Amino acid sequence: MLQKIGVLTKEELDTLKKALKEIEELWKKGDFKVTRSQEDGHTAIEQYITEKYGEVGKKIHTGRSRNDQSMTMIRLYSLEQLRLIRQLASDLATAAEARVSDFNAVAMPGYTHMQRAMPTTVGTWLGSFAQGWRDSTKMLDGAIGVLDQNPLGSAAGFGINGLALDRAETAKLLGFQTVQSNPMYCGLSRGMFENVALQAMSLAMVLSSRFATDMMMFTQQETLFLALPDNFVTGSSIMPQKKNYDLFEIMRANGKVFGSLQMQIQETIVGLGSGYHRDLQCTKKAFVEACELGTSTLALLKEVIPALQVREEKLKAAMTEDLYVTDEVYQLVAKGKAFREAYGEAKEAFFKRKAQQEAEASKKPRV
Amino acid sequence: MLQKIGVLTKEELDTLKKALKEIEELWKKGDFKVTRSQEDGHTAIEQYITEKYGEVGKKIHTGRSRNDQSMTMIRLYSLEQLRLIRQLASDLATAAEARVSDFNAVAMPGYTHMQRAMPTTVGTWLGSFAQGWRDSTKMLDGAIGVLDQNPLGSAAGFGINGLALDRAETAKLLGFQTVQSNPMYCGLSRGMFENVALQAMSLAMVLSSRFATDMMMFTQQETLFLALPDNFVTGSSIMPQKKNYDLFEIMRANGKVFGSLQMQIQETIVGLGSGYHRDLQCTKKAFVEACELGTSTLALLKEVIPALQVREEKLKAAMTEDLYVTDEVYQLVAKGKAFREAYGEAKEAFFKRKAQQEAEASKKPRV
Amino acid sequence: MLQKIGVLTKEELDTLKKALKEIEELWKKGDFKVTRSQEDGHTAIEQYITEKYGEVGKKIHTGRSRNDQSMTMIRLYSLEQLRLIRQLASDLATAAEARVSDFNAVAMPGYTHMQRAMPTTVGTWLGSFAQGWRDSTKMLDGAIGVLDQNPLGSAAGFGINGLALDRAETAKLLGFQTVQSNPMYCGLSRGMFENVALQAMSLAMVLSSRFATDMMMFTQQETLFLALPDNFVTGSSIMPQKKNYDLFEIMRANGKVFGSLQMQIQETIVGLGSGYHRDLQCTKKAFVEACELGTSTLALLKEVIPALQVREEKLKAAMTEDLYVTDEVYQLVAKGKAFREAYGEAKEAFFKRKAQQEAEASKKPRV
Amino acid sequence: MLQKIGVLTKEELDTLKKALKEIEELWKKGDFKVTRSQEDGHTAIEQYITEKYGEVGKKIHTGRSRNDQSMTMIRLYSLEQLRLIRQLASDLATAAEARVSDFNAVAMPGYTHMQRAMPTTVGTWLGSFAQGWRDSTKMLDGAIGVLDQNPLGSAAGFGINGLALDRAETAKLLGFQTVQSNPMYCGLSRGMFENVALQAMSLAMVLSSRFATDMMMFTQQETLFLALPDNFVTGSSIMPQKKNYDLFEIMRANGKVFGSLQMQIQETIVGLGSGYHRDLQCTKKAFVEACELGTSTLALLKEVIPALQVREEKLKAAMTEDLYVTDEVYQLVAKGKAFREAYGEAKEAFFKRKAQQEAEASKKPRV
Repeated sequence: MLQKIGVLTKEELDTLKKALKEIEELWKKGDFKVTRSQEDGHTAIEQYITEKYGEVGKKIHTGRSRNDQSMTMIRLYSLEQLRLIRQLASDLATAAEARVSDFNAVAMPGYTHMQRAMPTTVGTWLGSFAQGWRDSTKMLDGAIGVLDQNPLGSAAGFGINGLALDRAETAKLLGFQTVQSNPMYCGLSRGMFENVALQAMSLAMVLSSRFATDMMMFTQQETLFLALPDNFVTGSSIMPQKKNYDLFEIMRANGKVFGSLQMQIQETIVGLGSGYHRDLQCTKKAFVEACELGTSTLALLKEVIPALQVREEKLKAAMTEDLYVTDEVYQLVAKGKAFREAYGEAKEAFFKRKAQQEAEASKKPRV
Repeated sequence: MLQKIGVLTKEELDTLKKALKEIEELWKKGDFKVTRSQEDGHTAIEQYITEKYGEVGKKIHTGRSRNDQSMTMIRLYSLEQLRLIRQLASDLATAAEARVSDFNAVAMPGYTHMQRAMPTTVGTWLGSFAQGWRDSTKMLDGAIGVLDQNPLGSAAGFGINGLALDRAETAKLLGFQTVQSNPMYCGLSRGMFENVALQAMSLAMVLSSRFATDMMMFTQQETLFLALPDNFVTGSSIMPQKKNYDLFEIMRANGKVFGSLQMQIQETIVGLGSGYHRDLQCTKKAFVEACELGTSTLALLKEVIPALQVREEKLKAAMTEDLYVTDEVYQLVAKGKAFREAYGEAKEAFFKRKAQQEAEASKKPRV
Repeated sequence: MLQKIGVLTKEELDTLKKALKEIEELWKKGDFKVTRSQEDGHTAIEQYITEKYGEVGKKIHTGRSRNDQSMTMIRLYSLEQLRLIRQLASDLATAAEARVSDFNAVAMPGYTHMQRAMPTTVGTWLGSFAQGWRDSTKMLDGAIGVLDQNPLGSAAGFGINGLALDRAETAKLLGFQTVQSNPMYCGLSRGMFENVALQAMSLAMVLSSRFATDMMMFTQQETLFLALPDNFVTGSSIMPQKKNYDLFEIMRANGKVFGSLQMQIQETIVGLGSGYHRDLQCTKKAFVEACELGTSTLALLKEVIPALQVREEKLKAAMTEDLYVTDEVYQLVAKGKAFREAYGEAKEAFFKRKAQQEAEASKKPRV
Repeated sequence: MLQKIGVLTKEELDTLKKALKEIEELWKKGDFKVTRSQEDGHTAIEQYITEKYGEVGKKIHTGRSRNDQSMTMIRLYSLEQLRLIRQLASDLATAAEARVSDFNAVAMPGYTHMQRAMPTTVGTWLGSFAQGWRDSTKMLDGAIGVLDQNPLGSAAGFGINGLALDRAETAKLLGFQTVQSNPMYCGLSRGMFENVALQAMSLAMVLSSRFATDMMMFTQQETLFLALPDNFVTGSSIMPQKKNYDLFEIMRANGKVFGSLQMQIQETIVGLGSGYHRDLQCTKKAFVEACELGTSTLALLKEVIPALQVREEKLKAAMTEDLYVTDEVYQLVAKGKAFREAYGEAKEAFFKRKAQQEAEASKKPRV
């Protein structure tokens, strides 16, 4: 772009491209160093080029500030992560849907208040998460729509006077859908857009955390409805007999860690005036950590879902009579009885049966 | 719908409609009471109708649980609030855009690190917030897309066996775009969808909080760039001379309170297993409070923006020489100088001028 | 104090005391009104007294600002709540300790990773919470030590020039241990001390929330180790057979709500400059709500602990063989075997026994 | 201790000590490796010793689990950090107090609502923070009182059956004040005690964040009341003239980051059942990061306070007439006038003077 508007000659552009390629190679080999006095990579690159290629290096910082450069890099990274998470959430929904039909005929107790409540199926249970992961893509699309704007050229938040930057051109070259035209809005959106991105990722993470909690309960010795192959579980350093589903404990906690990283960014920017403040630098670490938690969690679940094993005999044994009392209510409703009366009648019958069973049980000799 | 599937006769439906209308009227007059033993409004309504209209009252709870009823009410409320906030954010963006042209010619110091940095205009500053409020509607659209599903008929989260509920019909009657078909997903989405709604409202609130902070700084005696008419400001009980912009302090704090209410809901549900837990009841208060903060904040800003006054003489006085040093750099760049050299030259010239001014100032006799 | 330093005569003081008593009585009967134009109770009181008792009313606001008045009220309330919570936490620890001996002989499976791990007792389990509630009083003592300082007389944060307030006297009259002497520190501590108070209450709340989660698991049909009398449990509007331990779900959620209210206050003040800002007003609601959650939670637990029932037959049945494998390891260690070898030997023996049991089980005809 | 109770011979103890010393040396040189299959350092150490010194290595894990080992390390680290922060907070208070007398005679405008309110002094302002840092040591003492208990020997949370561990001996050897006797309480306190520690550090951090915000305002070009030597400030990559107080922006943000790390731990443990869950592992990173933020922030402030420069001419110019109106009120009160009348009189006089000044100003020819 700088060549297009006449700041660089064709030769200078070629030199800069060559030099940047060279720096990239050095970097990969670990041979490109940023010294403490250079403060950051931007200065290190400029000094390297100036030392080796002369005058042209002094032109590389034209039409920009470290501010909009940083922001552009984060913006590109954010969009990449949003698209990756969107793909993973969609894949995960598909993987879960694929197993719904396997499990739709497998009855399972439905719980409310952690007590057995009514009959459901393993398929319905897994399908509920599939729906959630599917829906999470809608918020991700919303966030992509917000972020897909090019901040490059906003410089320190006030644009550049006296230089006709072609911001549409850099938007096109960098793959942005549009230019973020107001330069102060570019500055204002720093941190705020990272927050939007994490909020959009949040639904998939909250779901994963809740799925993990269900898995912890359904793999307890007390239920054992579900299991995973041995390569997913761990042992204990003191108890020889243990098989632990640690991965779900980490996943449950990571849902909270993710939320806290999002909130960390939000707290840092809420109530902060417009214009650049160095507080914004502190949002980078939390953002990258949260994205990595997000992608690794969904990627792991993509492995877990196809490996999920159902213990049909345990599930069958858990389908106790009390789960069907509500069905009895509706059998009476189907025969024309008003709901409230059917409820009363079924309740009475249930507790009568239960009392009888207990009376009989007490007659048997104790073992 | 219950009449359509044969649970109610036409006469019963008419009686129920009449009875519910009657209860609504009583309620408005403060004459409909819920007793402690009735626990909630659902039971109170059923008992009222049964006492007054007999048998038909016992049918009113057919095909549902308090669970999906509560959820349906919250869902309808959430969608109403999301649409209201969306309208307010869009109106606010329009109101701010309308003043951008008024203020585009009014120069203002741009600040970074709270230090005067480069020249900008009041229009650019206000336009940056306008853009943000405009962008916030995209997340709100995403959330509306997620929430617009009918949970009624999911009962306690496991549907109803033996009763052919027509859930598409209730979706149509209640104005939902679609049915939330998996009944466990309905249960799973409780609290989670409220969280999504607040996250989508969050961008507009964070912006308002940041706008408030700018207003606090720009109405200080040290700047006085902006002002509001007296009906927006308050006094002091001890200092007779004070004029305080309290409204912006409350607005700044409310951005944080809003975020904390959203997080309260998120923390309550993250890591919670699927199936109904009464923890979910605790999300209602925070949700309603957050929605009210959101709508009242944006409604107030709709009043503030058109009333905003610019103190041109104060702004003019603040456009000090140092703001233009970067412009000097680019005047040199325009003449073909490499950026880094132009930067060095302008810097040297600036500090030389400054030293001269200080030397001259020290020669003048002190007053 | 104002009389002591000569601002009020003895007669004026008596009139003011009488008038304030009168207002208190009116208030209790609901007959003292604060109008919108009066803004707050302080103005309403002054105007009431001035209208009815003349000149003396105009003296009542001497030597103070609404600022330090509000702060003094909150400080007194905070100290009262801290002492109440301290008493409740201590009582609760005592109540739990009283039952430890009842339950010390009752074996119970110890869980790690939600899997049965090693044997413990109901007494050890309950005793662990007792210890926690006991320890929580140490943080409460720390907070009382911080807050017990009188802010009255700091006025708007800058004291009063030209009036020799006797702040030690008001400290004594109000029951404070000392004077908070620096007037700007009084202002700075607003919100910050409420935050300290909630942080000190937090340990007891986190413990209660964790106790609630244990109770949810130990009252599930899958375990049923513990129970509470019927007056603690609730039913369902659709499922006639249900008994739900809702109180623990509310308690678990309230631990999170409490944390979020504390954080709400912290977020409101962190990064706020010194000097009064109206943001601080927003911390009151959260503070009072959190204190009420705290005291009601501990008060409820004081009822729960003595009512706790142990289901010995269920516990006995749950003491399965695998819980004792670590004991086997240490029996070998006691005989002189190195830990790691003992571990290996016990592990091998356990899995061999388990395989035999499974082989035998598979030979039996299925029922 | 293991030797004392007969698990190890004197020779075995000496061998283990030598081996551990050796491992420490290797570690420092970067030559001690933990392989992926070893999972953690505990296993790596045991295997190293067993391979090199035989049988004795197999005894090293006697009487403990990785659980209580980890917990003991974190407990020792926590206490060390609490004591370090306590020292730093106390030193900082002392450093600030030392400068109070330098600045007590330097008048400074006191601000409320960010508007000039009443006169104060730089000494009073700095003293308010000194008091806060001093008070913060009380919460730290409370936390040290809670944490100073030895968890070693609680193994996986259920102690060791059949081995008479001398836990008082290990407490003494490790420098703990007492034994945390209930083994389930040891497990329960994991994460919870780290949370207590961070809450106790929080007051000093909130204060630092607020001090940073004041410094940002008092070093603005609009005020310039305070300054720091050049080695504390930074420049800009685009604006040659800038001097930025970035350190205070980072400090302000770090107050929020610290709070969010504390909350991350709290959210991870609140509502978690007792017994070890691997979620607890996720609290380590946040804890260490928060401690490092805490100590580095206070250490930096210890450098800042002695370097603080006061710009007396700027402060003098800012002591405008309006700051003294409340003093006028109290001069009238001193003469026997009722407060409310004195307030009214001073207010009227102030606005009359102000109107006159404005009238006169408008008569002067504009420059």
